[in-house]
Amino acid sequence: MTSPSPARRITAHRFEVTYRMAGPLSEAEARARNIALEQTVELPDPVVMDAGIREHVIGRIERLEAIDEGSSRATISYAADTAGADLTQLLNVIFGNSSIQPGLRVEDVSLPEALLGRFAGPRFGTAGLRERLAVPQRPLLCTALKPMGLSAAELAELAYRFALGGIDVIKDDHGLADQAYAPFEERVGRCVDAVERANRETGLHAVYAPNVSAPGSATVARARLAARAGAGAALVMPGLVSFGTMAELAGDEAVSLPLLMHPAFLGSFVAHPGTGIAHGVLFGTFARLAGADATIFPNYGGRFAFDRDECLAIAEAARAPLGRLSPIVPTPGGGMVLARVPELLQLYGDDVMLLIGGDLYRNGPDVTANASRFRDLLAGRSVTAP
Amino acid sequence: MTSPSPARRITAHRFEVTYRMAGPLSEAEARARNIALEQTVELPDPVVMDAGIREHVIGRIERLEAIDEGSSRATISYAADTAGADLTQLLNVIFGNSSIQPGLRVEDVSLPEALLGRFAGPRFGTAGLRERLAVPQRPLLCTALKPMGLSAAELAELAYRFALGGIDVIKDDHGLADQAYAPFEERVGRCVDAVERANRETGLHAVYAPNVSAPGSATVARARLAARAGAGAALVMPGLVSFGTMAELAGDEAVSLPLLMHPAFLGSFVAHPGTGIAHGVLFGTFARLAGADATIFPNYGGRFAFDRDECLAIAEAARAPLGRLSPIVPTPGGGMVLARVPELLQLYGDDVMLLIGGDLYRNGPDVTANASRFRDLLAGRSVTAP
Repeated sequence: MTSPSPARRITAHRFEVTYRMAGPLSEAEARARNIALEQTVELPDPVVMDAGIREHVIGRIERLEAIDEGSSRATISYAADTAGADLTQLLNVIFGNSSIQPGLRVEDVSLPEALLGRFAGPRFGTAGLRERLAVPQRPLLCTALKPMGLSAAELAELAYRFALGGIDVIKDDHGLADQAYAPFEERVGRCVDAVERANRETGLHAVYAPNVSAPGSATVARARLAARAGAGAALVMPGLVSFGTMAELAGDEAVSLPLLMHPAFLGSFVAHPGTGIAHGVLFGTFARLAGADATIFPNYGGRFAFDRDECLAIAEAARAPLGRLSPIVPTPGGGMVLARVPELLQLYGDDVMLLIGGDLYRNGPDVTANASRFRDLLAGRSVTAP
Repeated sequence: MTSPSPARRITAHRFEVTYRMAGPLSEAEARARNIALEQTVELPDPVVMDAGIREHVIGRIERLEAIDEGSSRATISYAADTAGADLTQLLNVIFGNSSIQPGLRVEDVSLPEALLGRFAGPRFGTAGLRERLAVPQRPLLCTALKPMGLSAAELAELAYRFALGGIDVIKDDHGLADQAYAPFEERVGRCVDAVERANRETGLHAVYAPNVSAPGSATVARARLAARAGAGAALVMPGLVSFGTMAELAGDEAVSLPLLMHPAFLGSFVAHPGTGIAHGVLFGTFARLAGADATIFPNYGGRFAFDRDECLAIAEAARAPLGRLSPIVPTPGGGMVLARVPELLQLYGDDVMLLIGGDLYRNGPDVTANASRFRDLLAGRSVTAP
């Protein structure tokens, strides 16, 4: 071997990942040791590694505790050097190969300022999104253009009517891509125009948020096109385009749009309590690391299976201190109805965006009246003009 | 609404997805109907949709059957138009929002030639990879450079020794990214040189496959850099960089390298039998749609939890007819040892790549002897010169 360096340490910074592991405490140390190896050196045998690697590269078990008779919790620290300044590699160290291990879940992630400082995070965050919408305080309102199959002109007409009714963010349904029904470029142009026309009539500052998710660098290309066309935000599905690509969008000067993260294709990470990634980590911490400005998730009691505590964990992770990374806007949706707005406001408070799609379509395609009812439900919530 | 088109049909092609659903057959039709709506129009109420959308855009239930008392199977067909020519959107229709539904698994996907023809798939496939390695028939041998923490010079020395011992594909451990220990560009240059030096001595055609996975378009940039530097293949983790980005690499003329797909961060999709995506679909069909030429998966009986049938399902999906998309090389790994090579050859046959990492490091850093033993285990398997 050529000149092995005795110390494999570049910086002293470490980050911590807390895993929930199937198995009793008596087995926890062996299991945690395997994870610490798997996520770093991928070699079982320390005799093949020099002292610097053993000391600085292999994950270090910081704490072990029993959760109950059948499961335990391990906190493992990793050298920040194992991730470098690379979000993809950070996620890889946290849960790359270990995602394939049975009975293992990422419960929590704790990142030091020195590591957080390597990620730009949200370009806008809650404050920046509020500024763009000219809504300093009240809860934000969001809806979705649908169904797939409408023409670009028809979707634009819906966008106009929603904006007229006072919705702040009018996003594409996440299934709208670049299909022949309503091609991306035509749809963006028409919907931007429609929302601007409504804004001139209302004096409000609604924005249109097209879904820019596409294969590979086509995501960036669509987002830039949307920005040039005058879109006010963009919808991104990191489950399909990757967290790294979302981070690239967030940092792209030619995009410079608030990003709404959509949870499509991420459901398997939260399908079982003993595997995957905790709701708050995935939809809160990772969302912010990757530059989302709002995080859409299916609220409890809708068409999906998240419970109230899981939803609150997302909201908390979206707003909690995270180095200098801005807080972002929790955006519960997924089958929400107008009748539940008071309950949602009670639960989430004012720094929230409420996403109601289908329920605003109840009485046919003239959605303005339903949008206005949605808006009226904010009465008394520090509503700003008009 | 502006001039709704009476028929929302662009082409007549449809593709089918078979879902396993929790719940008895008596509930299956209602459940399947909800999936068919969720994955397309995301509206519960057909009164808001015109006849063309109801007829052509909403998923159609093709078959329902009981699996057992507590689960059933639904095959739903979707118009190919819902995906367009966009891999990201195809995956979104198959399992975007439905990934968030409880107790739902993608068991099978059946794509018509007309839809398959929109995807280029693997650039090399099994035959192209064999040609590049000058190994027409016998099983291929793969190993990994590790541990993280070594310098680029040290990793290159290992690459040289593995190539000297007769390994065909010497890949980066999936945890090697662009860390300060062994920066990407330096590592690629040194490892390419080392493998070429060994090839001159052996007369063989070993290749070095760096891990090019990185945030956003940095993946393409690293792959192009690798290609310019003379790498013979590349390692990609679509769980972290997305299937769409892997497809972009496969189609990029400035890359033009065989792609080894690595399963990191994909484990949650296969962690439970009643949720996620079936092994063969994820690591076989999706791998090929997205242009992988070899698909790495953890073999049964190693450090991970796949069972024998799941591994065989991956191998079958890697090789089965799929329109004009080439078959690709199943690459079992994940804690395999030399002692199991005969069993693996018996199970997978000759069109396989065997990935053994840690076990080749057993006797310290001079890995050539272990690599030669690995190679010798192919004796009698239509081994080509020398």
